[in-house]
Amino acid sequence: MAGPCAVESRELLLAAAEAVAAAGACMLRGGAFKPRTSPKSFQGLGEPGLALLAEASQRTGLPVVTEVLDPRDVERVAAHAAMLQIGSRNMQNFALLREVGRQRKPVLLKRGAAATLDELLLAADYILQEGNDQVALCERGVRGFDPTTRYVLDLAAVPVLRQRTGLPIVVDPSHGTGDATLVPAMAKAALAAGADGLLIEVHAAPEQALCDGKQALRPAEFAQLMQDLRRLAPLCGRRWPRGVADTLDDRRGRRAGLAHGSFDDEVIAP
Amino acid sequence: MAGPCAVESRELLLAAAEAVAAAGACMLRGGAFKPRTSPKSFQGLGEPGLALLAEASQRTGLPVVTEVLDPRDVERVAAHAAMLQIGSRNMQNFALLREVGRQRKPVLLKRGAAATLDELLLAADYILQEGNDQVALCERGVRGFDPTTRYVLDLAAVPVLRQRTGLPIVVDPSHGTGDATLVPAMAKAALAAGADGLLIEVHAAPEQALCDGKQALRPAEFAQLMQDLRRLAPLCGRRWPRGVADTLDDRRGRRAGLAHGSFDDEVIAP
Amino acid sequence: MAGPCAVESRELLLAAAEAVAAAGACMLRGGAFKPRTSPKSFQGLGEPGLALLAEASQRTGLPVVTEVLDPRDVERVAAHAAMLQIGSRNMQNFALLREVGRQRKPVLLKRGAAATLDELLLAADYILQEGNDQVALCERGVRGFDPTTRYVLDLAAVPVLRQRTGLPIVVDPSHGTGDATLVPAMAKAALAAGADGLLIEVHAAPEQALCDGKQALRPAEFAQLMQDLRRLAPLCGRRWPRGVADTLDDRRGRRAGLAHGSFDDEVIAP
Amino acid sequence: MAGPCAVESRELLLAAAEAVAAAGACMLRGGAFKPRTSPKSFQGLGEPGLALLAEASQRTGLPVVTEVLDPRDVERVAAHAAMLQIGSRNMQNFALLREVGRQRKPVLLKRGAAATLDELLLAADYILQEGNDQVALCERGVRGFDPTTRYVLDLAAVPVLRQRTGLPIVVDPSHGTGDATLVPAMAKAALAAGADGLLIEVHAAPEQALCDGKQALRPAEFAQLMQDLRRLAPLCGRRWPRGVADTLDDRRGRRAGLAHGSFDDEVIAP
Repeated sequence: MAGPCAVESRELLLAAAEAVAAAGACMLRGGAFKPRTSPKSFQGLGEPGLALLAEASQRTGLPVVTEVLDPRDVERVAAHAAMLQIGSRNMQNFALLREVGRQRKPVLLKRGAAATLDELLLAADYILQEGNDQVALCERGVRGFDPTTRYVLDLAAVPVLRQRTGLPIVVDPSHGTGDATLVPAMAKAALAAGADGLLIEVHAAPEQALCDGKQALRPAEFAQLMQDLRRLAPLCGRRWPRGVADTLDDRRGRRAGLAHGSFDDEVIAP
Repeated sequence: MAGPCAVESRELLLAAAEAVAAAGACMLRGGAFKPRTSPKSFQGLGEPGLALLAEASQRTGLPVVTEVLDPRDVERVAAHAAMLQIGSRNMQNFALLREVGRQRKPVLLKRGAAATLDELLLAADYILQEGNDQVALCERGVRGFDPTTRYVLDLAAVPVLRQRTGLPIVVDPSHGTGDATLVPAMAKAALAAGADGLLIEVHAAPEQALCDGKQALRPAEFAQLMQDLRRLAPLCGRRWPRGVADTLDDRRGRRAGLAHGSFDDEVIAP
Repeated sequence: MAGPCAVESRELLLAAAEAVAAAGACMLRGGAFKPRTSPKSFQGLGEPGLALLAEASQRTGLPVVTEVLDPRDVERVAAHAAMLQIGSRNMQNFALLREVGRQRKPVLLKRGAAATLDELLLAADYILQEGNDQVALCERGVRGFDPTTRYVLDLAAVPVLRQRTGLPIVVDPSHGTGDATLVPAMAKAALAAGADGLLIEVHAAPEQALCDGKQALRPAEFAQLMQDLRRLAPLCGRRWPRGVADTLDDRRGRRAGLAHGSFDDEVIAP
Repeated sequence: MAGPCAVESRELLLAAAEAVAAAGACMLRGGAFKPRTSPKSFQGLGEPGLALLAEASQRTGLPVVTEVLDPRDVERVAAHAAMLQIGSRNMQNFALLREVGRQRKPVLLKRGAAATLDELLLAADYILQEGNDQVALCERGVRGFDPTTRYVLDLAAVPVLRQRTGLPIVVDPSHGTGDATLVPAMAKAALAAGADGLLIEVHAAPEQALCDGKQALRPAEFAQLMQDLRRLAPLCGRRWPRGVADTLDDRRGRRAGLAHGSFDDEVIAP
């Protein structure tokens, strides 16, 4: 899953979407509603951003994963997106978890920056309990004491979660490091650790980004990384998806597979 | 501010409320909507819990502070409470912050367990920006590596926040330690560090508590602590409040005072 | 215990020593051997620094506590100091712990910046096991995620250690915050939390300090703090020591007292 | 580099040494002097342990890496070992760093459990400054808040250190996770992240280990992991070493290479 942190303009979004599609991404990421530490930071385009994502999805054929922040927005966002993202700050926003649990859309649940893995699994339970079993868990870095990186990407979460759940496991090396120069190494490491999917920020012009440009790959860097990952995948016991259809269409089958622990030969889920 | 973690039954709530009123507390705390790590844990009584809080408030004369979890519940909770609590897990639930910012009720904003003090101040800005300037900041412990205590109570937050903001600063030694035997020492330390208020869990029968009983003081322990705090207060440059009216009624005056840094002789502000 | 971080010059050391003696400190602190993160930083004056400390001690009557870094230096440092400090970086330097355990001098053992309280107690056991039972434990801040303060001063360590050991408990608010403007609030909080002693950096001219000047109090600030602490002490169940003799001479008696948990009315023991 | 945490007996050491040699390890690890949190835990065999390591080295042809704890032991340990390990607890034991800096033996410097990467590099400077430029840096996990794993293995340290230094970078997934079931995934991830070497605990009978048995691989598990790593290495830009000679003999040449940044195609250098 790749794309810009935030939807900023039609041009930049389409450029990023086409670049990640060309490089073989399975899904387009991009935020229309952005949770920002300061109320004075760019908060996302909101509803018009959703429309731009829908347009980018139609053009590229890539399904969209985008964040929802407010339980009152869930239906509206679900109407435009193939997958709903619950961001790190909202991992224990239980009203929101219950609301996405009532949808029939896959959910990408990001680990809170100070959440234990037990807490992540229990947060997933809030969604599952409402009847939505399409939940992917996302490691995106935890708070640490060393300012060298933005967060500490806890890759051991991947094999730990694998032992404890059949849910797909995604890693976000972009937020997890906060530094585009570290993303390729950590993306490969995540694959080698057993991740089912990756969430990577790609921006057509990172130096102009309104949000987190420092951690976004340029299209050419992303294309190179995808080549490396494609070569690495079989050695990590993974079949590279043949395309979006391969990723999404047989979802039910794979979910059943998950229950039997046979998910190991897939690269990504929803 | 003192009372049980959660409203569990009429009897237990009234017992706790009367005990904390008798010991000199200024406000009654108690959760009707409880954020719980697991969906299988007791989630609070909900609306009936609010009604019990209102009854306890009428009986004791203590205004109520209680948590709100969902932006759709804000008006309903505000109708029953004198002060709205935003819990630690929701410090960056921006939809919720904006909603309480639209109320004209004081807000107790708890620091996230992995939030920096800058992030806490920026979260307060979400409330202030909506026009509600009655925000108190609450230190309640941050995540640490030592399992000895539940969290690390970061008392240096008190003088740091004092330097950066005129907003009142409250400390919660109950969540901050997770251990009733440590609460008195840390409550006194918080006062000595300059806190404007304390949020303390008191339960009529901690061993029966459905939530966090291990960290609740018994009524007699709370009464003893209040005596110790009352003696300590003048040496910490504080005048002990003469009663609830003293705490709440001149709020506007004190806010103005805050702006001039002359808040130092007050113990608490809602 | 107060004084400069490092012994830098005869003039500065004597000025600090006289100031802290006049303000009522019981011991003079100052480093002759300094552990520094970089080999290019000032490493302390070494042996000449010890001689200067001895001179300052004779002039002021204050016994000296100073750090020892190398097991091969222990006897040499012990010849000049009344108390040996094991710094935070060396809390698990077991060769050094055993060596100070073979001396008959009190030891101030500082908690490692990422050490649990169990690990601190077990580190003390290395000293006790060699036959030296004069060990004081020092909380000086643990690593945290918020760059606002240098460390997180974990004051809950005080009541926790009180429950687990009869050894005296000292708090260092200077390293624990890294910021002189926060030291008075945290020193008072430490006393209120039950600390037996405080270790405070005082420098005659902090802006000229070669090491940690930002966290050193000026003499006038220290004198003011001592006044505040003296007023607070009786309310924290402490008798203020009548002088150095009071602190050191009846050591054996108090150690025996410690074993019976009756240490509570003493302020500090070297 | 592989072998038991501690040298416990001749039989167990030789069994582990032969197993790791057969599986293709380049060096034998094993502790004769063990730093233990409690003075009552097994402290290692000491000098007889060094003799056993020397015997195991002769039998298998594997050079030995072993820890030194005390500056007074450095020469003695250096006489028996090809590489000196500075453990995590001693990363800032500057007396010890200076002493190994005076040797002409390679040094494996482990990151402290709460050390920033800057602090690790500055600790290495203490060794380099004494004239010993044969230093490898080892990431072995940092303190975190989640008890699920023993430490948080910070694999982003690998690409960060790569950008900042030409020194070889080793990862220890055994201490970094504390759990043998997680070691293979994290070892592969470390290689994918760009590590130059791995330090892995292997024990002939982990359930009998006196120290850290929970994190030791069995010989068959280690052999399987080595096969996986061997297949992965070329895709990570690495040539698998042809044997110990390949690793050690051309050290000087490769060190020169390091200076020019051309180390990338080598797997490990002691």
